[in-house]
Amino acid sequence: MSNSEENSSPKIHVQTPPVAPSAPSESQRTSATGGGGISGILRRWQREDLMKRGSLALRGIALFLSLISFIVMASNKHGDWRDFDKYEEYRYLLAIAILSSLYTGGQAFRQIHELSTAKQLLKPKMAAIIDFAGDQIVAYLLISSASSAIPLTNRMREGSDNIFTDASAAAISMSIFAFLSLAASALISGYKLSTQPYI
Amino acid sequence: MSNSEENSSPKIHVQTPPVAPSAPSESQRTSATGGGGISGILRRWQREDLMKRGSLALRGIALFLSLISFIVMASNKHGDWRDFDKYEEYRYLLAIAILSSLYTGGQAFRQIHELSTAKQLLKPKMAAIIDFAGDQIVAYLLISSASSAIPLTNRMREGSDNIFTDASAAAISMSIFAFLSLAASALISGYKLSTQPYI
Repeated sequence: MSNSEENSSPKIHVQTPPVAPSAPSESQRTSATGGGGISGILRRWQREDLMKRGSLALRGIALFLSLISFIVMASNKHGDWRDFDKYEEYRYLLAIAILSSLYTGGQAFRQIHELSTAKQLLKPKMAAIIDFAGDQIVAYLLISSASSAIPLTNRMREGSDNIFTDASAAAISMSIFAFLSLAASALISGYKLSTQPYI
Repeated sequence: MSNSEENSSPKIHVQTPPVAPSAPSESQRTSATGGGGISGILRRWQREDLMKRGSLALRGIALFLSLISFIVMASNKHGDWRDFDKYEEYRYLLAIAILSSLYTGGQAFRQIHELSTAKQLLKPKMAAIIDFAGDQIVAYLLISSASSAIPLTNRMREGSDNIFTDASAAAISMSIFAFLSLAASALISGYKLSTQPYI
């Protein structure tokens, strides 16, 4: 993360000087998202930069949380009835946590690669659509898997409170936090998608 | 619905004739959301009209489906263990179905009122934010309640397949379909929100 910030902030510093002389050509830019004028363009760059880093940070958090959820649930085997793979809800949670880790990992890798090389791996419009659809779908899957596992865990904890139910509860909460950050990331990518021209 | 179509279609017919002569002005259109040029404005109006009606239709479908889900689940009492209110999942599903009915009903009422009187009840920006946040949150709640009720119903149907489990399954599927239409409606209101100026 700190590496990507270092890479992207010089870009702004490098690009600021040439703005002043070439003012006339910028007045052609009158899109609905930034408006004319040099300060408008600068503000737009800053906002886009902030959104890029915000979306990377949110996906990084989601990756971290869903990895924890996946590891905690996958190691949740304590013999007898206390094996996660005896319950479909926990298997579902594990599957979605793995899927979410892969998705957010892939997206974070792509974003870091783009920030460090300043090269786009995908066409911008394609990338915006994939971003938005992916974030939204994985967020729905995460909340769905967490909701399905909660009642089972609740019922088990009424009977007895042991390491198995505690680990399940931990994995569920990590999935819920991963859902929250992916839902926020979906907002950002929805905004990005809507500012793409000719959609 | 038919009333609203009659109200909005004349507006388009009145403005169509002047399109053909002013073709050259269309090349000025370079904004992300619509831009100048008469045919551009017309296309934008048509798209906005289509989106308004699409969003109304989707909310109407969601209202209908969540009402069915609510009624089926609320009448799902057959004595002994076959009462929906003995299970927290079903109570959750019922609560969210009621909430979703109220929300979509209120939104559909507001939209029909706005279409028939051509008067805005709320400020456009406020309305766009409420629309988007509401659709998104209710969609998340619906998928969450449906996911939590599915494993319980699955387990009951392994034992015996009776009128209680069938009615539960019906209510769950209606909630899922209501979720699908609200998720689509959230896409539309996300687009509307992003085309609001100065967000």
